[in-house]
Amino acid sequence: MKRIGVDLGGTNIAVGLVDEDGNIILKQSVPTLNHRVAEEILTDMADLVNSVIENSGVDKKDIKSVGIGTPGATNSDTGVVLYANNLGFKNVEMGKFIADRVGLPTYIDNDANCAALGEAQFGATKGVDSSVTITLGTGVGAGVIIDGKIFNGFNHVASELGHTVINFDGVQCNCGRKGCLEQYASATALIRQTKEAYAENPQSKLLDYAKVPGDINTVNARTAFDAMRAGDEVAKAVCEKYIEYIAIGLANVINALQPEVIALGGGVANEGENILAPIRAMIKNMTYGPNISEEDLPRTKLVKATLGNDAGIVGAAMLGD
Amino acid sequence: MKRIGVDLGGTNIAVGLVDEDGNIILKQSVPTLNHRVAEEILTDMADLVNSVIENSGVDKKDIKSVGIGTPGATNSDTGVVLYANNLGFKNVEMGKFIADRVGLPTYIDNDANCAALGEAQFGATKGVDSSVTITLGTGVGAGVIIDGKIFNGFNHVASELGHTVINFDGVQCNCGRKGCLEQYASATALIRQTKEAYAENPQSKLLDYAKVPGDINTVNARTAFDAMRAGDEVAKAVCEKYIEYIAIGLANVINALQPEVIALGGGVANEGENILAPIRAMIKNMTYGPNISEEDLPRTKLVKATLGNDAGIVGAAMLGD
Repeated sequence: MKRIGVDLGGTNIAVGLVDEDGNIILKQSVPTLNHRVAEEILTDMADLVNSVIENSGVDKKDIKSVGIGTPGATNSDTGVVLYANNLGFKNVEMGKFIADRVGLPTYIDNDANCAALGEAQFGATKGVDSSVTITLGTGVGAGVIIDGKIFNGFNHVASELGHTVINFDGVQCNCGRKGCLEQYASATALIRQTKEAYAENPQSKLLDYAKVPGDINTVNARTAFDAMRAGDEVAKAVCEKYIEYIAIGLANVINALQPEVIALGGGVANEGENILAPIRAMIKNMTYGPNISEEDLPRTKLVKATLGNDAGIVGAAMLGD
Repeated sequence: MKRIGVDLGGTNIAVGLVDEDGNIILKQSVPTLNHRVAEEILTDMADLVNSVIENSGVDKKDIKSVGIGTPGATNSDTGVVLYANNLGFKNVEMGKFIADRVGLPTYIDNDANCAALGEAQFGATKGVDSSVTITLGTGVGAGVIIDGKIFNGFNHVASELGHTVINFDGVQCNCGRKGCLEQYASATALIRQTKEAYAENPQSKLLDYAKVPGDINTVNARTAFDAMRAGDEVAKAVCEKYIEYIAIGLANVINALQPEVIALGGGVANEGENILAPIRAMIKNMTYGPNISEEDLPRTKLVKATLGNDAGIVGAAMLGD
């Protein structure tokens, strides 16, 4: 049966009708306008779901369920979003609200968890029981799959791997702690590191590769990598350090969870083997069992996430089994 | 049915006959003499298991199985110890060796995992599905229980939480990385921190509370806590910092795994609420969801492990179900 997947983001609400093979048959989106009260946002979401169903021409009785990936802390048992900072949500009964207006069983989970489930069912981590999908974006999102299912902890909010400390006297995180992985390995962090490197090395070619060349305010997550490719040594140092931060974080994940596969997503992961190969080499020396052969002790594989922005919709659609 | 649990340590091999309620009916031990080849150590282990069975007077057909907790990386499916540094073991077929000589089904797992299973079945974390038992000793041992079972990762060597980095430019760890939790939160680390504090503050009363007062070589994991209780300010600072390190490590575990209960074991945990209460207070501000009420989002409980040194035997006995 087909299913509906919803990706609720800070900017857009995206809804897709997904088939059994994880293909998105029809996708529509509307702006979230996240300053609004929850009821308005949820009403738009329900309307969009109903619109996608209607426009698809698929009979509602041939649609199994609606799944929603939402930012923040969710209770996937009750369908309540406990807290979502960038939406201003607190104790929002999202599941019930949508189910009432759509007339289909509705499930919710954290957006990073949905992305991990999408990759596990149809993407980079398909075919293995245990995997972790880590998305390097504004923050560091992570979803953990164990025995093919989202691992959520006893209270539904586990796998906040971006908020594990890797440098206890380090950069202040907006979660209140210092030195969280997110402050070193997110795209936001890379942009900060690039700007800092430029400030210390104004002779570097870094700014030539800002979105608007010469404008430091338009430095993005590609700037340092592009400048490195053009031979800039300062950029090279930024990229190498950034890659090391990612490796430190992933090695922690491996020593703790030993997933069969880790999929790396987000814009930075589009660097592909340029970034994955050196991370793999570093991880090899950082993870458990360096004295044991690969034959005796298989190691976690590191790959690029493959579903891109669709992972959230596809994974959300697969909730509730 | 009764079961045999074996705790293979660097110093002693301890074997216990364990009843269905987790009570050790009969316990015997012999020195490990860990410089010997594996076969000699394993022969002594098998002999001791047979001796405990014989001395107990229990018919072997009333004993369900033998379980062994061993240091190092193990493959719990094949019964092979892949690598155990302090025993010099590499690819030792422990399970098969003991099963052949005892004539009972034999299971093995990592010693920290066995301790966690023991606490989960009969100790501090009994009655909950998910828990983590962390032992602060020479190193930081950790076992993770999910859905009532040891969580091992896809390759059987997960939950090496002591070797997750909390300070990436920090103290060199013998695993090859810098800044592992073990280098800050183990009893060994506390002893190092105590000695360093004395070196910087020779006016402090720290050495008065060494095992041999005045002898820096006899500083142990109680020294700083005892000196703090006697009013020494330097000791107080050492203890507070040590407690903070533990809190940082536990907060990482919580944000990643959200277990229902964490049990803290090892000699340091005998400080009880002196150490647990301040750790709890710190963790509260370090873990996910500070803006959500306890009612809406239940939090991980932190307790003292209760089985002490017997956790390894009792947990090992419960392997193989």
